Amino acid sequence: MENTIFSSIAKNFKAVFLDSYGVVKNYNGLIEGVQRSIDFLRSEGIAIRILTNDASRSQEQQYDNFRRLGLQGIEVEEIITSGMLARQFLKHKILNGKIAYLGTEDSAHYILQSGRQSVPVREVNLDDMEAIAGFAFLDDEGFDWNVDINKTINLINRKNMPVIVANSDKVYPVSKNDVSVATGGIAKLVENILNRKFIHFGKPDSQMFNFAFDDLNRSGHFEKTDILMVGDTLATDILGGNKFGIKTMLVLSGNTRPELVDILIGVTGIIPDYIGESIVK
Amino acid sequence: MENTIFSSIAKNFKAVFLDSYGVVKNYNGLIEGVQRSIDFLRSEGIAIRILTNDASRSQEQQYDNFRRLGLQGIEVEEIITSGMLARQFLKHKILNGKIAYLGTEDSAHYILQSGRQSVPVREVNLDDMEAIAGFAFLDDEGFDWNVDINKTINLINRKNMPVIVANSDKVYPVSKNDVSVATGGIAKLVENILNRKFIHFGKPDSQMFNFAFDDLNRSGHFEKTDILMVGDTLATDILGGNKFGIKTMLVLSGNTRPELVDILIGVTGIIPDYIGESIVK
Amino acid sequence: MENTIFSSIAKNFKAVFLDSYGVVKNYNGLIEGVQRSIDFLRSEGIAIRILTNDASRSQEQQYDNFRRLGLQGIEVEEIITSGMLARQFLKHKILNGKIAYLGTEDSAHYILQSGRQSVPVREVNLDDMEAIAGFAFLDDEGFDWNVDINKTINLINRKNMPVIVANSDKVYPVSKNDVSVATGGIAKLVENILNRKFIHFGKPDSQMFNFAFDDLNRSGHFEKTDILMVGDTLATDILGGNKFGIKTMLVLSGNTRPELVDILIGVTGIIPDYIGESIVK
Amino acid sequence: MENTIFSSIAKNFKAVFLDSYGVVKNYNGLIEGVQRSIDFLRSEGIAIRILTNDASRSQEQQYDNFRRLGLQGIEVEEIITSGMLARQFLKHKILNGKIAYLGTEDSAHYILQSGRQSVPVREVNLDDMEAIAGFAFLDDEGFDWNVDINKTINLINRKNMPVIVANSDKVYPVSKNDVSVATGGIAKLVENILNRKFIHFGKPDSQMFNFAFDDLNRSGHFEKTDILMVGDTLATDILGGNKFGIKTMLVLSGNTRPELVDILIGVTGIIPDYIGESIVK
Repeated sequence: MENTIFSSIAKNFKAVFLDSYGVVKNYNGLIEGVQRSIDFLRSEGIAIRILTNDASRSQEQQYDNFRRLGLQGIEVEEIITSGMLARQFLKHKILNGKIAYLGTEDSAHYILQSGRQSVPVREVNLDDMEAIAGFAFLDDEGFDWNVDINKTINLINRKNMPVIVANSDKVYPVSKNDVSVATGGIAKLVENILNRKFIHFGKPDSQMFNFAFDDLNRSGHFEKTDILMVGDTLATDILGGNKFGIKTMLVLSGNTRPELVDILIGVTGIIPDYIGESIVK
Repeated sequence: MENTIFSSIAKNFKAVFLDSYGVVKNYNGLIEGVQRSIDFLRSEGIAIRILTNDASRSQEQQYDNFRRLGLQGIEVEEIITSGMLARQFLKHKILNGKIAYLGTEDSAHYILQSGRQSVPVREVNLDDMEAIAGFAFLDDEGFDWNVDINKTINLINRKNMPVIVANSDKVYPVSKNDVSVATGGIAKLVENILNRKFIHFGKPDSQMFNFAFDDLNRSGHFEKTDILMVGDTLATDILGGNKFGIKTMLVLSGNTRPELVDILIGVTGIIPDYIGESIVK
Repeated sequence: MENTIFSSIAKNFKAVFLDSYGVVKNYNGLIEGVQRSIDFLRSEGIAIRILTNDASRSQEQQYDNFRRLGLQGIEVEEIITSGMLARQFLKHKILNGKIAYLGTEDSAHYILQSGRQSVPVREVNLDDMEAIAGFAFLDDEGFDWNVDINKTINLINRKNMPVIVANSDKVYPVSKNDVSVATGGIAKLVENILNRKFIHFGKPDSQMFNFAFDDLNRSGHFEKTDILMVGDTLATDILGGNKFGIKTMLVLSGNTRPELVDILIGVTGIIPDYIGESIVK
Repeated sequence: MENTIFSSIAKNFKAVFLDSYGVVKNYNGLIEGVQRSIDFLRSEGIAIRILTNDASRSQEQQYDNFRRLGLQGIEVEEIITSGMLARQFLKHKILNGKIAYLGTEDSAHYILQSGRQSVPVREVNLDDMEAIAGFAFLDDEGFDWNVDINKTINLINRKNMPVIVANSDKVYPVSKNDVSVATGGIAKLVENILNRKFIHFGKPDSQMFNFAFDDLNRSGHFEKTDILMVGDTLATDILGGNKFGIKTMLVLSGNTRPELVDILIGVTGIIPDYIGESIVK
């Protein structure tokens, strides 16, 4: 573990995996100077993948968002979201029937697509669930928590079927100090009430890293030793990267507070190979 | 453990502790025939206490509710709610300042009374919390979950202070099949997000049983062996009673389904001394 | 919360509850100067109770140990151990049959006494358990972990019966830096494997505080506001005292490291009313 | 979910992943008739991989064991153990220093090989750990639990380093009714005491399935829809297969008791696509 400058580390790798929130952007917009870092990686011929647990927006929407914020040089297909893994699962494992969901129509559109019908929880008739074949936690927005969380609990309790969580993050930051409950947090509440474990997608799960690794290897030859994972969160980015067997760098531009780094590493036992201020410095 | 008739068991004790929901009443009103059971206990001179984790209503309100449903013979002071323990804690441990809360105004009125000011979460100014000295989860109603749960998380995260949960039940039944998230479930979500443990009141905690035991002994002399706890829930009524060292009877008129009793006892290891259909039969 | 001198705080109370390990003694023997503190309390007429989760030794043995270490002025009946609560439970709830246990013969002798037969796990015949009516985790010593932990798991899995944990502490300190797994840690392993929750005795459970409170009130009149709990551990002494509704003081002479106090209080949300170096200063 | 015959299901797939314990063999030796099933798969040209969480023995040792039991037709390289994933991790992530371990010398030999020195916990000097760069839980045998588990706790507590668990199973069966604590159970005890999460290898983690999937694709072209996972345990085999997006079949020849299948599926929400008695019938 060394405190260090991103560029001097990154140049030893053939590819970098970047978390999006806390590394490339935050609640304010782009992290200042991040364009320079992306340009540097491109000029060095280092491959880039963005690995994000944000399942509320498709690749294209995340791409558009980068553009709107003014970031150039990240392509649509370089963005990998946990929603893509959720979609893949649903495609392989649930062949018939409707999927009920908690989330926005938008999130349902891109994750549950593939010719299949989906239905928001509020429209489910608990006394006629014959057609419901699965359930998906997609987003923390788009529904009335007071009503629809209870309905979700009763729906899942009444009918045994696969239940997936498209984004396992429990919270997301909304300002310097404050957070908001994310999809994974709501799913956790329901898991806790029903004493069940749903199927979660997203970092730190190896599947996300493997998806990116396979994708990378379709455009060249990469070994695990060629890749650096950069993230702002020990429990997702660093744990996942460590477990997948690639080098990891923790940056302090997101939700890990600089003054707590040492304590958090000690307490969690999740040890990044490198620590830096941001991908800019 | 024996399958048996309530009256033939109860008559061997000098006092019975009855859970309210699932024993005396349910989502439909009074459990049919329960008046006869109360009358029987009275005629035998057996003392009664109602031990309920419902913290949303005061003793008086619970009493009025029994009356409205048509039940006679339970006195105000025989009703013991987890809210009373929460109130006692606040009185002893938080001497100055306001208490912020999630719940109805009604619940705040009776738990947070005692001359102290209380403030619902929605009215708290996160940038001016000087005066806030504690936080209480009081009820699952009376606030906007989408907004106020997030605000609660940020409030508790910003200011370190005692946080109490007046009712630690995670759900309550709303019909034969369906449940609703209770105060304890919402508190659990927040505990999970913040990785904290709040101070919970209510069964199975010994404090509730001790409160009832002390109260009983102000009107006579009772040993633990003189008391029978009757409840419909293994994890609260029976576990709590067992741990307190009194005999326990599980009744199947509430949320323990008859066909699952044996499995649930095996899985949890919580073993009632007696099992019966209800306090009526 | 104020940083402060023990004696200047204690003199405002009519009684103090003292944790034993980390407050009165440690792995080295008596904490230096502790005799003066006990003498001070006596001279002020302040009642004393020792509340210890050590269930491996009886009141008398703990008393003898204080004497051997050179401490005067603590009487046998002022020592309250979690083992006493376990014994009380067994007496009320298990009327017939043998109790199987993990622990030393000594611990079995004093907890399981009361005319009843007990049997160490190693002597249990798994194919003839008719006579076994309960199980007790008593001590981390006195048995072969490799063999007897597995046997315990199979024993409890085969026969459904009350299982108690006489000391719920997961570890105890054996030197400045090192700890040893305590009874509660071994019980936790078995609970985890069997996905069960046993009946635990000891702080932070209210029962221990209530036992001490009742005992105190047999020799005078004490309100909760008259009592100060002093301990070295947030999760047992301070949480338990807070919940019971009495004032609490954290001392740094035991297993809470001074440099981590603020962080630990922030992380756990367990807030002592006072913090001091030890009961000496 | 359909109750069905293994061969009639398997013939619709191009490859089957078989769990070892409970599917191919058990505490008695080979499951009767299993040779016919392997022969059937071979005759149909269906590819086979054995996916086992047993990390105590190498591929070669597991192969030899199958042979000794009389099973023909499984090749060394078709056996995939969680220990192989642990070894891969150590190779990529721990480049220098010794690895301390709990387990047999044998397990250390094959997992920690690769030119690196390893040291059993009993030989570690806690006051001179400079050279220790990682820790591995390898096996539940080969050490004195009373002594070495405590030493492990203090070792990991004193030095922050990557800690891996080569087999995350908590127990393994030793007879029809009885189990023994496995490596994952011991690791869980230590995680619980230290409040940490180590890096676990083995099913249900996707990494194991991905390893097998990649391996399979080196000898042909396989889609996820071409593969059937067969196992006796919902929480590892079926959950892992489901999450990886392949079809799953639960067999009742191992540790899932036939009379509890429906209840366990309902309680866990882990739903196999097929259920059969064994791979024989």
